[in-house]
Amino acid sequence: MTILLTGIGLLATQDAELGEIPEAALVIEDDRIAWVGAASSAPAADERVELGGRAVVPGFVDSHAHLVFAGDRTAEFAARMAGMPYAAGGIRTTVAATRAATDAALRVNLARLRTELVRAGVTTFECKSGYGLDVATEERSLRVAREFTDETTFLGAHVVPPDIDRDDYLAQVTGPMLDACAPYARWIDAFCEVGAFDGDETRAVLTAGTAKGLGARVHANQLTTGPGVRIAVELGAASADHCTHLTDEDVDALAGSGTVATLLPLAEFSTRSPYPDARRLLDAGAAVALATDCNPGSAYSTSMPLAIALAVREMRMTPAEAVHAATATGAKALRRNDIGSLTPGRRADLVVLDAPSYVHLAYRPGVPLVAEVWQSGTRVA
Amino acid sequence: MTILLTGIGLLATQDAELGEIPEAALVIEDDRIAWVGAASSAPAADERVELGGRAVVPGFVDSHAHLVFAGDRTAEFAARMAGMPYAAGGIRTTVAATRAATDAALRVNLARLRTELVRAGVTTFECKSGYGLDVATEERSLRVAREFTDETTFLGAHVVPPDIDRDDYLAQVTGPMLDACAPYARWIDAFCEVGAFDGDETRAVLTAGTAKGLGARVHANQLTTGPGVRIAVELGAASADHCTHLTDEDVDALAGSGTVATLLPLAEFSTRSPYPDARRLLDAGAAVALATDCNPGSAYSTSMPLAIALAVREMRMTPAEAVHAATATGAKALRRNDIGSLTPGRRADLVVLDAPSYVHLAYRPGVPLVAEVWQSGTRVA
Repeated sequence: MTILLTGIGLLATQDAELGEIPEAALVIEDDRIAWVGAASSAPAADERVELGGRAVVPGFVDSHAHLVFAGDRTAEFAARMAGMPYAAGGIRTTVAATRAATDAALRVNLARLRTELVRAGVTTFECKSGYGLDVATEERSLRVAREFTDETTFLGAHVVPPDIDRDDYLAQVTGPMLDACAPYARWIDAFCEVGAFDGDETRAVLTAGTAKGLGARVHANQLTTGPGVRIAVELGAASADHCTHLTDEDVDALAGSGTVATLLPLAEFSTRSPYPDARRLLDAGAAVALATDCNPGSAYSTSMPLAIALAVREMRMTPAEAVHAATATGAKALRRNDIGSLTPGRRADLVVLDAPSYVHLAYRPGVPLVAEVWQSGTRVA
Repeated sequence: MTILLTGIGLLATQDAELGEIPEAALVIEDDRIAWVGAASSAPAADERVELGGRAVVPGFVDSHAHLVFAGDRTAEFAARMAGMPYAAGGIRTTVAATRAATDAALRVNLARLRTELVRAGVTTFECKSGYGLDVATEERSLRVAREFTDETTFLGAHVVPPDIDRDDYLAQVTGPMLDACAPYARWIDAFCEVGAFDGDETRAVLTAGTAKGLGARVHANQLTTGPGVRIAVELGAASADHCTHLTDEDVDALAGSGTVATLLPLAEFSTRSPYPDARRLLDAGAAVALATDCNPGSAYSTSMPLAIALAVREMRMTPAEAVHAATATGAKALRRNDIGSLTPGRRADLVVLDAPSYVHLAYRPGVPLVAEVWQSGTRVA
């Protein structure tokens, strides 16, 4: 079964060789991209869809999201906008609500957020635990998450919960909690930050996880400079996330590594914090991804398009760089080579925009431009 | 015919006496609000709609938009994001495209933007001319605009077009162009700015318009401090729009007047400019409205929700102040007392949000939270 999408105003493949193709077409065969090129030389297909000049980009890859939780933190948000600074401690509010929630309630909330993500053009998303912080709730958080995505991340090391000694908690995270969670997780993550976990603790958590076969990723340098980025690079983590406060050494370490710097501007938006310096990272040669960080405390948004607009407005990425970061480099941050670009052979995950160019994602902020979403060759929104 | 909307999680009426009502209900009779109050004491009605805890606010009033144009300015936007500053002269690009467009093309574009506005929760919008800048194109711009809204504004004084002497153009704007446009316009506006029109020119244009029975509104103090705000107050204009660069005298003048300060943060977003100081205006006692400024040059967005989120994040308005600015004070900026609040007797224009509170408009930036839009008692989205 082949489908020809034609009349594409601008096809931004995110493939280094194929580049951007004006007046383009694309052929899907089953769940894969089979062909891309000029519409005038497109092959025949079983079905034909006319896109009337609209632009096409790969489906967005949201490589950083916290989607298993209950409740929200509206009051904390309003207080922060009135001047109270963001602190990691607010996480504990969500932990209490999540522990009290049934699996069914967690599933309903995650399903609602998945629907939002898909409508925002996201075709692959990562999902972290980290609002359970006890063995049972972390395990069931990941079990529920795994029903929705293969990109699940064990984040027992989010903060130390209030009801346990710090060393005892770390022994759990690197011991029985990890044992319980590893079957449902692809990744291990730690929040390396003042108020969360220090460098030695972060290293211990990640090392325990990688010994169990999980890949490493790190919440690094969000609120202060610290050792997070360098630990991520040292351990060969797929991604160092946030990267808001970087030293020259951090930038150099990222640039010389296979670790992606995943920037999360919706968090800076919602915490009224300074934005990360994407320009500095890109100019140094680091790989930069964009993700939502969707969570009820510091970034309660599923909008990859707004993350792209903020990256352009606030972080001086070009629209082309921002879209690449939200697709191809997001895939790299998940060490995936089957998604993130519209290269023949890759999964047919793509977004049709109600606009002639992907530039409109930044040029038309807040406007819902995602017209169609195709996932594995099937239209899902 | 009466309709009961019940199960409202939080009803933010924007009426000073009715305030915010939790667990609320609302009765629509024909095209009007007939009753608001606690769901537990709601009267019977012919129909009943259960909203399941979702929040309700009045329909947004977008009191500043430039929607009659052809083409877009994607390349100018991308160049600006790469470092080129915004200048009023870019308007001329759109003038050339608009003059070359048929009425039908202008109508199709305006219909598309109206659809976006309605989906963003806007139930009343203003629409300016200003991309014609000759008698024929200004007149047909307003004729087309009037098909879509009663709140039409003659903005011949947008910039001086390239093909005419400055004094000759001003004579047209205050003479034959005004005569041709006044039948289709409720308002007259002028862009008082370096590169557009100076104080004397602005005063001459507005005075000519008010002599023809039009109400005055002014593009004031967008790119620099200048006389715009003081002229608006002096002439009793309904609104001084932008207000990005204000002196203490400007703030005092607005605070002591019936002129609304209409802030347009999507313009600052899309031109990477500093945001207006809403806090200073509110604390001084000025009336502050929010609008989109939707136009293809400096703010190509129809998103009142993003304008609200930006007002909270960047301009230190509270979520309650921002919603009030986008509804009740927007209505005041159009000198309308039939819209802008959910007061019995007013038009039944309202938005149902996919959220328990209007705070989520700022707390969940970029997420399309507008679930239902009712206009004059009929669901339109």
